[in-house]
Amino acid sequence: MSGWFVLTIVLGVPVGPMARIVMKFGGTSVADLDRIRNVARHVKRETDDGHQVAVVVSAMAGRTNELVSWTREASPLHDAREYDAVVAAGEQVSSGLLAIVLQSMGVNARSWQGWQIPIQTDNAHGAARILDIDGSDLVRRFGEGQVAVVAGFQGIGPDNRIATLGRGGSDTSAVALAAAVEADRCDIYTDVDGVYTTDPRIEPAARRLKKVAFEEMLELASLGAKVLQVRSVELAMVHKVRMFVRSSFDEPDAPGMGDLDNPPGTLICDEDEIVEQEVVTGIAYAKDEAQISLRRLADRPGVSAAIFGPLSKAHINVDMIVQNISEDGSSTDMTFTVPSGDMEKSLTVLNDAREAIGFDVVQSESGLAKISVIGIGMRSHAGVAATAFQALADKGINIKAITTSEIKISILIDGPYAELAVRTLHSVYGLDKT
Amino acid sequence: MSGWFVLTIVLGVPVGPMARIVMKFGGTSVADLDRIRNVARHVKRETDDGHQVAVVVSAMAGRTNELVSWTREASPLHDAREYDAVVAAGEQVSSGLLAIVLQSMGVNARSWQGWQIPIQTDNAHGAARILDIDGSDLVRRFGEGQVAVVAGFQGIGPDNRIATLGRGGSDTSAVALAAAVEADRCDIYTDVDGVYTTDPRIEPAARRLKKVAFEEMLELASLGAKVLQVRSVELAMVHKVRMFVRSSFDEPDAPGMGDLDNPPGTLICDEDEIVEQEVVTGIAYAKDEAQISLRRLADRPGVSAAIFGPLSKAHINVDMIVQNISEDGSSTDMTFTVPSGDMEKSLTVLNDAREAIGFDVVQSESGLAKISVIGIGMRSHAGVAATAFQALADKGINIKAITTSEIKISILIDGPYAELAVRTLHSVYGLDKT
Repeated sequence: MSGWFVLTIVLGVPVGPMARIVMKFGGTSVADLDRIRNVARHVKRETDDGHQVAVVVSAMAGRTNELVSWTREASPLHDAREYDAVVAAGEQVSSGLLAIVLQSMGVNARSWQGWQIPIQTDNAHGAARILDIDGSDLVRRFGEGQVAVVAGFQGIGPDNRIATLGRGGSDTSAVALAAAVEADRCDIYTDVDGVYTTDPRIEPAARRLKKVAFEEMLELASLGAKVLQVRSVELAMVHKVRMFVRSSFDEPDAPGMGDLDNPPGTLICDEDEIVEQEVVTGIAYAKDEAQISLRRLADRPGVSAAIFGPLSKAHINVDMIVQNISEDGSSTDMTFTVPSGDMEKSLTVLNDAREAIGFDVVQSESGLAKISVIGIGMRSHAGVAATAFQALADKGINIKAITTSEIKISILIDGPYAELAVRTLHSVYGLDKT
Repeated sequence: MSGWFVLTIVLGVPVGPMARIVMKFGGTSVADLDRIRNVARHVKRETDDGHQVAVVVSAMAGRTNELVSWTREASPLHDAREYDAVVAAGEQVSSGLLAIVLQSMGVNARSWQGWQIPIQTDNAHGAARILDIDGSDLVRRFGEGQVAVVAGFQGIGPDNRIATLGRGGSDTSAVALAAAVEADRCDIYTDVDGVYTTDPRIEPAARRLKKVAFEEMLELASLGAKVLQVRSVELAMVHKVRMFVRSSFDEPDAPGMGDLDNPPGTLICDEDEIVEQEVVTGIAYAKDEAQISLRRLADRPGVSAAIFGPLSKAHINVDMIVQNISEDGSSTDMTFTVPSGDMEKSLTVLNDAREAIGFDVVQSESGLAKISVIGIGMRSHAGVAATAFQALADKGINIKAITTSEIKISILIDGPYAELAVRTLHSVYGLDKT
């Protein structure tokens, strides 16, 4: 829709192209009725411009935690289906309240629970996946000028019971809904105003990015930039849903807020839409990593499975994995990282499986940090990794492990150097320059 | 089922007749998780005895008020369908929590929302009536030993949206459910331990009644004994659902609590089941009544409609209505009562309609009390009214108006004499004697 506009001006009728927009607001954005009113003003801005709108809301901030704590108090081991019934009540309340406020502002709106649309999920209560959304009723009502206010984070399982998507699932609800109704854009309103080249708390020169490719955002999201849920970005990539990350605390009627193609925020989109690709888009980091090395493993098929199978069963999330020939040349060394909090548990699991794995020595170290350089342009540029290694070497930062992918270089270093490394890499790739 | 028992004793298997019981717990009974655990112990007692159980719960005390206040804060004038979505979340939470607690005690239980069963209502959102309940799925699961935990106060309307029954509707949910699953009994657990001959705060000698006929309970409920919702009693009468009013604060495992035919509490049942009918069952009272008299009305057809039509439109609840020939013999006087809080509004409505009604003088007085003597045995006993009038006269209490029905005498007196009148009548009919 970019690049064209309608010149016809008719008094009282919105001017410009009509778009279909899904707007998602998180818990802090609907924490109380004043904030819900602010959300409603964002919605009204879009409907006043003639757009068709579905709004996806989370529970009011703090409510989900309260409901979750009650289920735990009821019983530490509880039926996930009952947990879902209890916790989904949070979004039921916020969706109804927003519909009421919208109506009071003259916006034709109604709330929709997951089971009403319906949003069909699988049976994995508490962490369900959306299988299908029937958007036909919503689309018909868009045509009648009605705004759909959809309870996020939930759907209905094959057992005809409420299923929740797991914490943060409202982003996923929004993207899935945007795909189902073929929305032009899915705006994720959050407490930050976009995606930055790195964490501005560490590097004040961090810049807000105008556009980020889905693949890049996936790396950024999973590497510690807590702006978006990873699953929502995966889903958006598969269905080519253009996502906008923007701030719910911006004044709803400020200039440019209703700009259809270029509102304030960061667009997460297909790489084809990004004309000027940067080599490096951002620097992500994850602290509190631990490194475990198994020395002189028997170099035989199945050894990896013997290591990572038991760790997976113990619900330990293994991240970087590096395998090398051992010093003695006849066996192999395996190094991998886990969250520091899981290190002791990992060592216990490995020692229990020592016979099956067959290693000589296990070494471990916690308090490490993983710094990642991300950029889709890396695919067509050589020397990106070498630049990073040299820059870190110049600052005397020792590299403990390296893994790379097509669009990412991850480097494991000592924890205390994390901030210095982030700033160094941010600067060396020119990310602090506009 | 009364009067027979099973002598077979098999170790570990419940002994005695199996019954199907609906148990209803109000908001104060599920106010927090400790109380929910207490409710679960009541339920477990019945399932341990081999009974089939459905539990109907209200929202945790205070939650409904909180949700209602949010809808008002969102907009004083709000869509009743959205109000319903918001407020029904309260019972969704309490039903899920009780299911979790029951499971933790080893009781096979699951929660049911109104739309899942489904409980079909009409479209009167905020004050809907139950049209139909499909109890087949619940009954099938009773056979598998599963307890149904049903969210009270709600169902699903013809528009496929949540509809609430109005405040206190959980009693009605319970009775309707009991009718749908053909339960042997519907136990209403509340914060009092039964229905009394009168308010024990006014007359300490008030006794708990063992049995009350539906018709009597209807009069008691609508006349100010706030134990049961009027609609639930009407429904129970139509479907002949035996209701037990009992205390949720009784120790769940105390002796006699599981007595199938005679648990502690008051049975509300068909009059046929009451062998020894008392002439007078109880004394009810309502304070803060106001009396309005229209003097010298034209005595013509349609004059009543001209008076009560406008009052009804103004949502004023008119109670006692007495019509007399005027002093002058050629016109009529009309006297009726309204709640004291509605008196000024009523007078305004009447003056606005003065021309259409055609009255000479309007007189009014607030701060009155209505005392009612109720008893199904009255139908076959003469002199019950005369006894009341004489007893009140003996105490110097002036009677301002009288209305009677087959099973009730209502007497309007000055407010300050209410307690004395209640005690006097309670005594004169021998209600303080066991």
